[in-house]
Amino acid sequence: MSEDHMSVDLMDYAALTQNALRGVIRQALQRAASPGGLPGEHHFYITFLTRAPGVSIPDDLLARYPEEITIVLQHQFKDLRVTDDFVRVTLTFGGVPKILTVPYAAITRFHDPYAQFMLEFEVEDLEASND
Amino acid sequence: MSEDHMSVDLMDYAALTQNALRGVIRQALQRAASPGGLPGEHHFYITFLTRAPGVSIPDDLLARYPEEITIVLQHQFKDLRVTDDFVRVTLTFGGVPKILTVPYAAITRFHDPYAQFMLEFEVEDLEASND
Repeated sequence: MSEDHMSVDLMDYAALTQNALRGVIRQALQRAASPGGLPGEHHFYITFLTRAPGVSIPDDLLARYPEEITIVLQHQFKDLRVTDDFVRVTLTFGGVPKILTVPYAAITRFHDPYAQFMLEFEVEDLEASND
Repeated sequence: MSEDHMSVDLMDYAALTQNALRGVIRQALQRAASPGGLPGEHHFYITFLTRAPGVSIPDDLLARYPEEITIVLQHQFKDLRVTDDFVRVTLTFGGVPKILTVPYAAITRFHDPYAQFMLEFEVEDLEASND
């Protein structure tokens, strides 16, 4: 094998790795959704693109956060549902419960401050019409 | 939230991350096992602990490699079978075909030189009797 070739990635390891690491988010959320809930003081800051495919959030949130939003899953969440491809949760904004549906592929950052653990993801830019 | 606490990881993110990244190996192997095979000059160096749980290799290989072995998947492999938990492949050693069964959990390193891509894993030390 020649060592002088340029690095080529026909396997797309970058995408494989990112997709694999999204599985870490899913498993962390599954833990949050389990009867025992999150251990210790663990909690999550999750940032996602509000206009990414499959994202569903109320119009008023979309107007306020036309590009991305960071939500916190600590004590004030309910109806957390974790599927293979997306997470759905009810969060309270200004006293009003709102349902958010977020595919893992829309998540750009996952942060658990208690564990000082963070994952960041490249998400393809979208042609969003941010009034 | 206090920022002065020690970092605590009751979620075991390290293990979640390692397990997730083993999925990258599985997907790369699935590509190798597909009808099209590996694209370009991609090939894999896979290092695994020969005495880890679930590993099955012939006794003569185990005697020669009592701790770990690095195998190459390039052109000279056959009967590659990729399951959720392990990979099985027939490789030729000194002209003799040998069947190796390797759980992903036994793999300590995965390297694709063509892509300059490498993953390394912590595997718990085993009390091996390396005569």
